[in-house]
Amino acid sequence: MQYFMKLAIAEAQKAAARGSVPIGALVVRNRSLISSAGNEVVKNHDPTAHAEILAIRKACSSLKSHIIDDCDIYVTLAPCPMCAKAISLARIRRLYFGAYDAERGAEFRMLLPKTQIIGGVLEIQCMKILQNFFSERRT
Amino acid sequence: MQYFMKLAIAEAQKAAARGSVPIGALVVRNRSLISSAGNEVVKNHDPTAHAEILAIRKACSSLKSHIIDDCDIYVTLAPCPMCAKAISLARIRRLYFGAYDAERGAEFRMLLPKTQIIGGVLEIQCMKILQNFFSERRT
Repeated sequence: MQYFMKLAIAEAQKAAARGSVPIGALVVRNRSLISSAGNEVVKNHDPTAHAEILAIRKACSSLKSHIIDDCDIYVTLAPCPMCAKAISLARIRRLYFGAYDAERGAEFRMLLPKTQIIGGVLEIQCMKILQNFFSERRT
Repeated sequence: MQYFMKLAIAEAQKAAARGSVPIGALVVRNRSLISSAGNEVVKNHDPTAHAEILAIRKACSSLKSHIIDDCDIYVTLAPCPMCAKAISLARIRRLYFGAYDAERGAEFRMLLPKTQIIGGVLEIQCMKILQNFFSERRT
């Protein structure tokens, strides 16, 4: 669990390095990495290019199915409602996330009635990447 | 308003013709069509390929911005939470939709606090395409 979250953190760090909000996500099946992505909203001119959406799209493309119910997703931050619904539409089995989103609270939960959710995985590390990114931008 | 919804209906009909759920969407700026799309979930192996997401992605790509707050979106069916949040993230000014979604109710409204929403545009036509599609599949 921590192994895969560390890989998601590495994706978040790559996003930060290119000036994007540092959030990373990956899709995993049977302990194998299927896809990974970091936030690309600004770089790609795409408001839907959150890490989760990109990781899900890549995984579905590589598995040739819009349903990936034997897969799990790891993401460094609790998903927004767009991503939560996408996780639900793809019927992903389990969501592991790192940092909780204090601003949004738990609004994603009701969009994921059938998904097992494990929050707070490497929470401090996941949160710190975001805090560092935004504090550097403020100065 | 009805002119653009008719174009969205044409996109829905094209989706039906390729076996996809007949929902169409378009992005409009200053009465000019910027992008149009129909549902491609099954064809593209992409659970996020709802008509709205595809239309927003195309519009943002063509306008080279992830914020398109001078644009409106037309869609034949009230958006799901994923699409509602995407409309909000793109800061689209106004949402016109055709059919109401009886199953989902109005859960999209709270995800669009800043967007003007006009529902029921050519509602009957928008609903009938969906009804015909699903009744043909049932027999």
